[in-house]
Amino acid sequence: MSEAFRPAIPAEAPSVDSHVSVGKLLDALGSDLVTLGAGLGTRRYCDWSGTPGAVPLALIRPRSTADVSRALALCHRLGQPVVIQGGLTGLAGGANLQGGEVALSLERMNAIEEVDVVSGTITVEAGAILQRVQEAADAAGMMFPLDLGARGSCTIGGNLATNAGGNRVIRYGMAREQVLGVEAVLADGTVIGDMHKMIKNNSGYDLKQLLVGSEGTLAVITRATLKLAPRPASLLTAWCGLPDYAAVTRLLHYARANLSGGVSAFEVMWPSYYDYVLERVAGLRKPLDTRHAYYVLLESPASDAPRDAAGFEDTLAEMLAEGVVENAVIASSHADAARFWAVRDAPAEFPVLMPGLIGFDIGFSTADIGAVADACEALLRARWPDMTTLVYGHLGDGNLHVIAHLADAPPDLSDEVDAAVYELTRAWRGAVSAEHGIGSKKRPWLGHTRDAGALQTMRAIKRALDPAGLLNPGKVLESVARSSSANLPGAW
Amino acid sequence: MSEAFRPAIPAEAPSVDSHVSVGKLLDALGSDLVTLGAGLGTRRYCDWSGTPGAVPLALIRPRSTADVSRALALCHRLGQPVVIQGGLTGLAGGANLQGGEVALSLERMNAIEEVDVVSGTITVEAGAILQRVQEAADAAGMMFPLDLGARGSCTIGGNLATNAGGNRVIRYGMAREQVLGVEAVLADGTVIGDMHKMIKNNSGYDLKQLLVGSEGTLAVITRATLKLAPRPASLLTAWCGLPDYAAVTRLLHYARANLSGGVSAFEVMWPSYYDYVLERVAGLRKPLDTRHAYYVLLESPASDAPRDAAGFEDTLAEMLAEGVVENAVIASSHADAARFWAVRDAPAEFPVLMPGLIGFDIGFSTADIGAVADACEALLRARWPDMTTLVYGHLGDGNLHVIAHLADAPPDLSDEVDAAVYELTRAWRGAVSAEHGIGSKKRPWLGHTRDAGALQTMRAIKRALDPAGLLNPGKVLESVARSSSANLPGAW
Repeated sequence: MSEAFRPAIPAEAPSVDSHVSVGKLLDALGSDLVTLGAGLGTRRYCDWSGTPGAVPLALIRPRSTADVSRALALCHRLGQPVVIQGGLTGLAGGANLQGGEVALSLERMNAIEEVDVVSGTITVEAGAILQRVQEAADAAGMMFPLDLGARGSCTIGGNLATNAGGNRVIRYGMAREQVLGVEAVLADGTVIGDMHKMIKNNSGYDLKQLLVGSEGTLAVITRATLKLAPRPASLLTAWCGLPDYAAVTRLLHYARANLSGGVSAFEVMWPSYYDYVLERVAGLRKPLDTRHAYYVLLESPASDAPRDAAGFEDTLAEMLAEGVVENAVIASSHADAARFWAVRDAPAEFPVLMPGLIGFDIGFSTADIGAVADACEALLRARWPDMTTLVYGHLGDGNLHVIAHLADAPPDLSDEVDAAVYELTRAWRGAVSAEHGIGSKKRPWLGHTRDAGALQTMRAIKRALDPAGLLNPGKVLESVARSSSANLPGAW
Repeated sequence: MSEAFRPAIPAEAPSVDSHVSVGKLLDALGSDLVTLGAGLGTRRYCDWSGTPGAVPLALIRPRSTADVSRALALCHRLGQPVVIQGGLTGLAGGANLQGGEVALSLERMNAIEEVDVVSGTITVEAGAILQRVQEAADAAGMMFPLDLGARGSCTIGGNLATNAGGNRVIRYGMAREQVLGVEAVLADGTVIGDMHKMIKNNSGYDLKQLLVGSEGTLAVITRATLKLAPRPASLLTAWCGLPDYAAVTRLLHYARANLSGGVSAFEVMWPSYYDYVLERVAGLRKPLDTRHAYYVLLESPASDAPRDAAGFEDTLAEMLAEGVVENAVIASSHADAARFWAVRDAPAEFPVLMPGLIGFDIGFSTADIGAVADACEALLRARWPDMTTLVYGHLGDGNLHVIAHLADAPPDLSDEVDAAVYELTRAWRGAVSAEHGIGSKKRPWLGHTRDAGALQTMRAIKRALDPAGLLNPGKVLESVARSSSANLPGAW
């Protein structure tokens, strides 16, 4: 993460005459939409991944879907590659430029168009900031449940393009579960108008589900209709200490079956993580004085606060009686809950505490996570005895985060640690990306999760929707050979 | 529905030499997998839609994914169209043959391979019957929440291919929300192995979400890993009478926000429907003696039975006090709940009571459904004064069902009623299919819901994954010109 703003290193030379190309974009779209020259230098064009990124040849900032369509149609005729940018908070290099591309930012298309309380929907432009969408839902007495640390900067378009996850996936699902309709623009400028409000709609292929998670390589999402959830009256929160992994999965199962409101967060922290953050991160307080083999932050949404609170206490009492939970404390105030969450949210401080850290966002079946985490810590310790290794995750979703850090690390350490940890995803049939996406950073490892048939199918779909490979080239999949753009009808 | 078994009318002549083709299939795959001749005559090959269907040239019944792959690779080389068949309970003609195809039935691939309680998953072959999957989940103390009337005959492969819905979508989602991993075979025999157990998996394009709902036109789903839900301790059920549509949406909103376990069914019946079924369907009893403008069957899952039951009573009491609900009765036993559901499940008797009925499965935003239903009843009554028109639906999902029946109807009535009702889906930005799919029956109306850009994109994906148009031709989209199959590499 310390490398996030290092100078651009173009990964490959542009295959088109860039000056001609951007000049034609400026001529056709005008200086309100297209920024060139000195205007380009003062902005950030890299995401939070630490992967290198170039400055764009031009910055296009459309004000409407028609603008996006015109811009992409032009780029298509010019054979000009385009990288789509939202809030630039991604962690996989998906929005970074490799050199030779123009950047298309949705920042001006940020309207919240409609909240429809009766239908339970909110309709927004893709550049709308997640937190604004949450606030608009809240103001209408509803909740937009997608939530992640970057909420104040990330955009709905980026959330959908990367199928964002976060803490409450176990209860409300990933970004893809929140979307009812999308409008999107294909590489050639064709607009797909699938703005619908229905939960049930089996009228042909569900294109939005293909576009969600395609990381800007198949189309530009311009607008979306999202599902709203009822807003819970309150959240019930507990901190638990448990003796072993079987107890962790037993608590998860029992809580899901017995809490009337279900489980909205089940965050598991291993002792490596717990001890490190309590010692090193300023301002944290131990939720419990006792030490345990596993710590769980359990949260349940309450519709009917007194009854649900009583049920929450009964559930924990039963787990204590069974010995599944060794010790537990229930938050009796928002301040208590915030203290528990501060322990879980400590990774925000990691880039400062551990410069050059190597972070992982990987997935496994819930049954396997305990063994995989043990195997991961053991293999890293055996090979790098001085390495700091921290393990934590969203257990109910099968999402494990691992942090590896070695002071005075050799320059190729990251490649070696990557190879060792991603090998676990191959061996345990896991996911090389649980919630961050593939981008450019994880592309070398995609074959650990997806087989040859799946990769071949992904390439066929990419070729079908973007035959010249102009949208976000080199992300998720390898770049399509640029020569094909010369064969496009109407090429200038 | 009375026409379900009428004789086959081939829609177009096969473009390949059928005798040569099926002979080569038999030679290559053997008589255990391929049935020809007399063996074909005794089976049903049509779904429940009433659309015409042909007898296949051959019936292929693979025993493994490798068999499916070999069969499709052969058909691909032969240019032989294939229709995939599951339980044949569809209502859109999606599994019917047009003539000149072979049928591929997954009936022998019906294993329930694994229930993983810790991960909350069940892994099955595509031919597994839905009810067997529900029973296997139940035996493990969990629930597979997808449920529909055809549960005893329909298969998981068909449920996924058509993205099946049903009564509990409002709480648990459509079939696509239940699937974590799939294995599928493309038209050329390529196997996609995406069998994963993770809720969070952002490792490349989510191909399973494209295949789910593609009605057998893009690939054959052979296996799936499905998500299990906690099994509720009990279900709370009430029958309510309401004064107007605003009250209906107010009850929905209030119940979702205040019932701890949420709402698992919100079935709305208009007086046209209620009066008809109470008068004509044998064995039904009125849940309430009072008449109302709308009737709602409300169901909520309870984890903590006594507390949740008290919350359910409080919620209804509040709605009665506000005048939102005019009268209500809570089921005090399974028998009570079954009596309420019998009123909602009465459409099973409609084909006998109304031979030649015209049924609709359409979708609108929840805000629009009241007005659309009124408009629909008014326009049908104005044009056909003697028509019986019944309206009911799954309101929280935006799913409306309309039944139209005219005794001694002229032969082209169905086309005229279709045109009138589907025009409403165009005018109100609705769905021509909410949960049944497009198949062949609704293909003429697909453009009412999807725009030119979406249709063009669907065709591009179809061409990319099945360039010769051999999988389920003419379903969802028009048939691809068969001549292209002559250009395939390795054609015999």
